[in-house]
Amino acid sequence: MTAEAASALDIDVVVLAEDPDDAATRVASEVMLGRPSDREAMGALAQRCDVVTFDHELVDLSVLDELTAAGHLVRPGTATLALAVDKAVMRRTLGDAGLPMPEHVIIDPVWGDAQGAIEAFAGRHGWPVVLKAARGGYDGRAVWPVADRHEAADLVARADSSVALLVEEHVAIDAEIAVMVARRPGGVGVTWPAVETAQIDGVCREVLVPGRLDPEVLVAAQELAGTVAQVAQVVGVLAVELFLCDGRLLINEIAARPHNSGHWTIEGAQTSQFENHLRAVLDLPLGVTDPAHRAVAMVNIFGDATGSDVHRLMAGGLSIPGAHIHLYGKTPRKGRKLGHVTVCGTVPSLVRERAWAAARALGTSVPAGLELEVLEL
Amino acid sequence: MTAEAASALDIDVVVLAEDPDDAATRVASEVMLGRPSDREAMGALAQRCDVVTFDHELVDLSVLDELTAAGHLVRPGTATLALAVDKAVMRRTLGDAGLPMPEHVIIDPVWGDAQGAIEAFAGRHGWPVVLKAARGGYDGRAVWPVADRHEAADLVARADSSVALLVEEHVAIDAEIAVMVARRPGGVGVTWPAVETAQIDGVCREVLVPGRLDPEVLVAAQELAGTVAQVAQVVGVLAVELFLCDGRLLINEIAARPHNSGHWTIEGAQTSQFENHLRAVLDLPLGVTDPAHRAVAMVNIFGDATGSDVHRLMAGGLSIPGAHIHLYGKTPRKGRKLGHVTVCGTVPSLVRERAWAAARALGTSVPAGLELEVLEL
Repeated sequence: MTAEAASALDIDVVVLAEDPDDAATRVASEVMLGRPSDREAMGALAQRCDVVTFDHELVDLSVLDELTAAGHLVRPGTATLALAVDKAVMRRTLGDAGLPMPEHVIIDPVWGDAQGAIEAFAGRHGWPVVLKAARGGYDGRAVWPVADRHEAADLVARADSSVALLVEEHVAIDAEIAVMVARRPGGVGVTWPAVETAQIDGVCREVLVPGRLDPEVLVAAQELAGTVAQVAQVVGVLAVELFLCDGRLLINEIAARPHNSGHWTIEGAQTSQFENHLRAVLDLPLGVTDPAHRAVAMVNIFGDATGSDVHRLMAGGLSIPGAHIHLYGKTPRKGRKLGHVTVCGTVPSLVRERAWAAARALGTSVPAGLELEVLEL
Repeated sequence: MTAEAASALDIDVVVLAEDPDDAATRVASEVMLGRPSDREAMGALAQRCDVVTFDHELVDLSVLDELTAAGHLVRPGTATLALAVDKAVMRRTLGDAGLPMPEHVIIDPVWGDAQGAIEAFAGRHGWPVVLKAARGGYDGRAVWPVADRHEAADLVARADSSVALLVEEHVAIDAEIAVMVARRPGGVGVTWPAVETAQIDGVCREVLVPGRLDPEVLVAAQELAGTVAQVAQVVGVLAVELFLCDGRLLINEIAARPHNSGHWTIEGAQTSQFENHLRAVLDLPLGVTDPAHRAVAMVNIFGDATGSDVHRLMAGGLSIPGAHIHLYGKTPRKGRKLGHVTVCGTVPSLVRERAWAAARALGTSVPAGLELEVLEL
């Protein structure tokens, strides 16, 4: 999706891909094969580019530090990426800035008495707690709700003790909110409207704009995300995922790249997160982030139980009026995120209904735990 | 721009390009080098594709007939393309269907007494007349206004007598209107709203949606374009360019491909002409064509007198709020069309002003003959 935005601005995108079949290779101006942790591959990439940027955070910060030292522009920089790749660094940095987060304690590697630390934390904040590996998590992976000390012991025994462990209070979430921010090297930034997201089992299922929350809460979320972007000194876009708990906003996670919670901006906002990411890392003026429609719904498309070829289902999806379908070119597998669909309009319930109708036509089931008032077209 | 739309739908685009530097090669999934008139190159392309389609009409119909006979899907088909590549065929076919056009006479190749035919036509309809080569014209090339029989003789002496010549009345144009239609193989079609275009010296400079014309005229234009698409039996998108003369609509030209007058649909309509072209040629349900905004302005970007690198001017263009800039990756040259800019909003004069402000920042001068009330931001 970044390459699509780059094409309009006649920006050449050189993709470093691990696999020649990666979806991005099909729209990239040029493809180089290699791993982001490979010094040589990253050096060759940087040599070909004005700016090196990222669409995931599985990067090696020491390699990026070397590129920066050699005079290459790496955006966002490693200070920002350190927060995005390591939840412990993120919690410490945002905590030092006085920003609101769930209560937590960090167990640094290599752990001493992890079990003792978890039990002590639970003693103060109660069971259940949430354990998280500081690195390597994504879409709910490496995040474990833990009901009691037995489950904790079990997890501690299995987890990788070379990675820091976070112990967090299990907060009663009233809603989840996400905000995208774009920020240029000089610090000038723009923030898209805060949106309501539905995460089931740690995976984003839908995004509603503006959603059903109090507008004051959404404005507060937008402001908080802007502060996070300043603290993180991000260049490019930053996603800030928030919990709304009993009227309070708590920072859950951040990502320093275009993010699923911002996919709605392609059709739904005056400027998409992908275009503004490019504009930000190239230090060009940022586009306005106002919504282009009164109501927008984005629903993710997942592989069905039999791994159906989603292309064979396209006619059904495209027959839903206003359905903007984006497929990522991934091989279908049960539960794999294959794309998303966005519907824009004026009536929130209608755009949501249509987005789900298209996603369902494309093989996505409505997850248990998601309340949909109207789902039959 | 078609490849950008294809990427979202995970449709692979194999581009047949004459030059490895062609802009489309940078976003295509795969590039084959060759000319569209080359039997072998076209055969190899068809072999790699489910459907062969076009973004220009410089094609060889006999080559396409052979591909069709060999079982390949060529969309639009050669019967439609015959109208798009040859203005004489277009005038005859649409005339036979009783559709309104400027008065004209066709001088078939190899001409006999072309001069006599022109003078006879002018005798009936008066000077000046407009001469057009039936084939090979584009952006006002091969269209010559002719003031009298001396100028006519001059042109006849210079023109290629192996191509049919059209002699048309010089109509007093009150406005120019363009309509895009998309049509599937079975005949189901959708039509975008009619738009007002400004052509200066035969080149499109701006498109205004909905423009400043009587809504009834726009609806009549939309209906007429739908009829043209049926007569032309197009599969894919069709552009119909119309003159408004003294309250009457006359068909000027058609193009059986995504067209400059439909570029506004990328941000300005619920579905873009590029996406619906793909959906049509793949026989998938078409997307809704309603405008996504109350007012849209599209302004073309042209190379300035010194052939400035438009990338160096991007910061200026992108600093105009709401400017969606599309560059085509062409080497800048004076007067060469390098891209376009679209602005969407609610106030027609404001979106037009902003689109021109961005185009001017990118080196485009406002042409003499275009009335712009407000141009200073």
